[in-house]
This record gives sequence, structure tokens and C-alpha cells, in this order.
Amino acid sequence: MKSLLACAALFAVPAYAAEETRSLSPAEIVAAAPQEAWSEIAADDLLVMTLAPDRNGTPRRVVIQLIAEPYSEAWTANIRTLAKAHWWDGLAIVRAQDNYVVQWGDPDGEEAGKARPLPQGLRTTSESQYTVSGDAPGWTRFKDVTWPRGDVSHYVSFDRGWPIEGAGTPDSASHWPVHCYGSVGVGRNLSPDAGTGAELYAVIGHAPRQLDRNIAVVGRVVEGIEHLSVLPRGTGPLGFYATPGERTGIVSIRLASDLSEAERPRFEYLISDTPAFARYVDARANRRDEFFIAPAGGVDVCNAPVPVRKLPTHP
Amino acid sequence: MKSLLACAALFAVPAYAAEETRSLSPAEIVAAAPQEAWSEIAADDLLVMTLAPDRNGTPRRVVIQLIAEPYSEAWTANIRTLAKAHWWDGLAIVRAQDNYVVQWGDPDGEEAGKARPLPQGLRTTSESQYTVSGDAPGWTRFKDVTWPRGDVSHYVSFDRGWPIEGAGTPDSASHWPVHCYGSVGVGRNLSPDAGTGAELYAVIGHAPRQLDRNIAVVGRVVEGIEHLSVLPRGTGPLGFYATPGERTGIVSIRLASDLSEAERPRFEYLISDTPAFARYVDARANRRDEFFIAPAGGVDVCNAPVPVRKLPTHP
Repeated sequence: MKSLLACAALFAVPAYAAEETRSLSPAEIVAAAPQEAWSEIAADDLLVMTLAPDRNGTPRRVVIQLIAEPYSEAWTANIRTLAKAHWWDGLAIVRAQDNYVVQWGDPDGEEAGKARPLPQGLRTTSESQYTVSGDAPGWTRFKDVTWPRGDVSHYVSFDRGWPIEGAGTPDSASHWPVHCYGSVGVGRNLSPDAGTGAELYAVIGHAPRQLDRNIAVVGRVVEGIEHLSVLPRGTGPLGFYATPGERTGIVSIRLASDLSEAERPRFEYLISDTPAFARYVDARANRRDEFFIAPAGGVDVCNAPVPVRKLPTHP
Repeated sequence: MKSLLACAALFAVPAYAAEETRSLSPAEIVAAAPQEAWSEIAADDLLVMTLAPDRNGTPRRVVIQLIAEPYSEAWTANIRTLAKAHWWDGLAIVRAQDNYVVQWGDPDGEEAGKARPLPQGLRTTSESQYTVSGDAPGWTRFKDVTWPRGDVSHYVSFDRGWPIEGAGTPDSASHWPVHCYGSVGVGRNLSPDAGTGAELYAVIGHAPRQLDRNIAVVGRVVEGIEHLSVLPRGTGPLGFYATPGERTGIVSIRLASDLSEAERPRFEYLISDTPAFARYVDARANRRDEFFIAPAGGVDVCNAPVPVRKLPTHP
């Protein structure tokens, strides 16, 4: 009676095995993907955030993959500059709002004279950079992947492993990264401010599609999201912590490329323009593995998260 | 520089106030809804789950609204029977899987001789009851609300405050409740088992649409979801806790109608078939309040959560 929500992996021989090949689960499809369908994430694209240990003394590390160019490239350049300057060290997670975001940065950022000065060399950002002109060169479309929008001139898909939305005609197209669970974006003040990248958030709830094209998506959490998603929710407006004691301290944020090889985490992602990824998306849209009785027939772009897996650290 | 993701409520007079009426945020529309657009939730439809206090000694209460008939009515009948029998008292939360579910029930449920016996009078359930035949009598459709499915004979909307999907022609239609963040459903074993309602879960991530029509949705958390969503993720398979010490104890689960009037929580929801709800959905699909620069033009049925608010306890 310890019922499981999804226990297909526990049963190797389903009842219909004699009649047809057993349908694989998405996880099994990913596990069976050939090595050439995977691409290692460059160390310069990985941000390693070390939080203060939890109450049990357990270390907490969150690894973020920065999004590929041309998406949000002014902000990702700034984030690299901020990490190299060790700008976030000693700052804190300042906000946790249920089914929305966890946010970090300078708790004194709005207080004149107390705010930590930003490093030299940050690039100028503007809201025009939330979208990229033209069609996305690297992307692959999947018939079952979409998101709810009445306007059929919009479409969603993946570009080199990133969930993307596009709109318009071939002559006048634009595209942009979308917010999913685990996406990392840039906090900002009111328009026309577009943020520097110093104030970041991670999505810990249902995809807040209303933020797309309204704020810069700069990456996604590839390890340790559970250190953010379990943080106590703030009781102030918008989930900000009401007292400094409730905040979680940031020990450091570094580019993986600035760590020694022994400390450097390594990951690879399933390339979206591969047969293995197409099979994975089909299985996410139409679950036929043993637990399921009625395939959905479609999948939200955020309910087909791009598979990312850990690689051994270089010896 | 303490950038906010959504701070429209902090600014009363936007720059364009002189030109046109300021666009209200979804929260402002809800706050302005007339009283006749609200309906109190019956005490017999509210399940009050008291968890063991947290490490700081803070009480933890989660309130669940059971779904309206005819949806999943065999399971909601069983849940009322189980609550009246105090069946869950002393059991535990056994599973927390990130971006998916928190699940509770009998940790020894699969061990012969140790499983807690179920009460008398439970109704038989079957997977045919995941859907309801015919069109939904109470529902209202909204042009901007949908979810990704290639098959246009499917549609999503709300029926008396519940997110619902429907399919088919007027002559041969069916409809069913959908899983959103905060939805509560019934754990089960492999088909044809459909679960009793003794093993329950709440969604703590992006809407797992693949579970619709594959498992019974029986309600939603209307208060205290943050006591579930912050629970440490289990490290066993599927997020089950690897050791009993990691589980969170359930002190009791009661129907609000079985509590004294002084203890009984009260809530009301915004009725989906009202102009106020239509305005709310439009604003969720097309944010025009001050923070936003590009309205999305559509909204996932799960990104327009039905507004629920607390009422004073009867004196």
C-alpha cells in the first residue's frame, strides 16, 4: 500500500512484454542516449555558488549554467565580471517567495552609502536585449512541444539545449529564452532599468511565463536547486526576509574556470538537435511507460527539462 | 539597487497615469472583486492537516480544499471516511521529490502485518473515474487560457473554481481536473489499482500534466503549502526519505466540519463564472501593470491559480 506515483523503473517485465517492445521512460531514454548526443558544458559557463552550511553543518553548493550566446549576453558577461571580482562573497539570499523565486544579492543594495560598489567594466544592458532578432540558428522544433498562447505565430522549442520561444515571420522574427523551474534571471527596477546581473533569482515554482521578454534569463540551476527550493519562505512583502537573521549567507560565487581542476564540477547536457532528444521529448509528451494509462498528447516546454548530468571531476 | 521582480504594488502613480486608467495587477483585481463574486468553502470540503512543529517549535498547519463533485467523488468520500476515523494520526510525510511532489501516508503500508488497517466503508475506485462524461455544467471558457496540446479538440478552463480539461465533441465529451502547483492527488500502485485516498501527495513544482487522467486529483492546498514545499528532499529513489528520522510526523488530519467553530478555518474562493474572475484571468495572461513591458498574450491554466482567501474564524 505504499503507493508510488511513478514506479515503472521498479518493474522490469510488464504484462505486455511478449507483445511489443516495452516503452521506455524518459529517464531510460536519456540513460540510453549515445555519448555523441551529449555536450560538456564549458567551465566558463558554470557558476559555482557556495552557501553557508545548513543547520546540520551540511555544505550547500548550487551550480548554475550560464545561457549560450547570443541570449542575454550583456548580462552573462557582467555575471562573469562580478564573479571574477568576488562581488557576491559575504552577501546573502534575501528573498524566498513560494511558487515563484528565490533571490540573492546585496541586502543593503538600496541604501545609499551602504550598498557594495559594483566592479568596473560592467556592460550596459537594455530591455531590447531580452529578445534576439531573426530566427534561432540552432533550434529544433517538436510538434508536441508548445505553450499556451492564442497567437499561432508564436512557437517554442529548444536551441542548443535551451528552451526558447520565437515569434513572427521568417522576414521579421525574434526569439528569446523562457522561464522554467530552475531558470536563473536578473532582478531589476522599473523599466527602462534592465538590471546589471548583480541581483539574481532562481525560479522555484510553476513557470512564470509572464516574466519572459520582461526580464533577462541568464541561465539555469544544474545542481543543488534543492538548497534553494527548501529555504524558508520570507514573511515580508514579495517574500523578502523580514529580518537579517533569516537570510542565508553566500560564502562565494565563482566561475568553474577560476577553480582548480580538482574543485571544478563538470556536467554535460543532452543536445536538443539529436534523435535521442527527440525521443525524450516524445516520451515526455506521451508517457507510455508502465505507470501511465492515458498519454497526455503534449508537453509544456518547461515539462521537458533538458537533461543535464554530472561528469567525474578531473583527477 | 535592491531590484524587485514585481514591485508594481509599491508604486501608486505610474508615469502614464495622466493618459489612461492605470492597469490593475491581478492581485488588485482580486482585492476589488465584489463580495458576490466570492463563495465560502463548506467546512465539509476542508481538510486540516496538523504536522509536528518544526525545529523552532513553530506549529505547522496545512489546509486542503477537497474538489467539488462529480470530480473524483469516490476518493473524496474515502478521504472524509479516513479523516473521521482519524486514520492518518501518527503517520508521516514519507517523500519529498524536488519539482514534483510531497507525499504522505503509512510508512509501513507495504509491509504485511505492519500496515495500519483501513477503516470500514471505503468506496471502490477505478481508473474510469479519473474522467467525467459529458460537458462540465459549471464551466466558463477563456480565450487566453489553454495548455500545450496539438489536439485542438482539447480545451482547458475552470469549473466552479477548479482548473479542468475537456475533450471531444458535444455528443461525446469528457472532462477531468488537472494537476497544478498545490494540487493534491491520490498515490496508487500500477494500473488497474486507482488508490483509496489513504496515500496522498501535493504538487510542489511545475504542473506535471502527464499525471492528468492517470491519477485522481482530489483537491488543492489553500493554506500552508510552504510547510510542504520547504521540506528537505528525500535522498532515496523517487525522493522517499531514506531513514525514518527524516520523515515529518502527522499529528492529525480532520475535516474542518469535525472541529469546533473556534478551531475551524474558513476560506472563500473567487467564483470562476464571474466578471471579476474574467478580469483576473485576462490580467494573468496579459500583465499590463507597471513592472511589465511585454504582455505574454496567453496563460497556462496553472499560472492563473484560482484566488482563495481566508475569512475570520467564527467567534
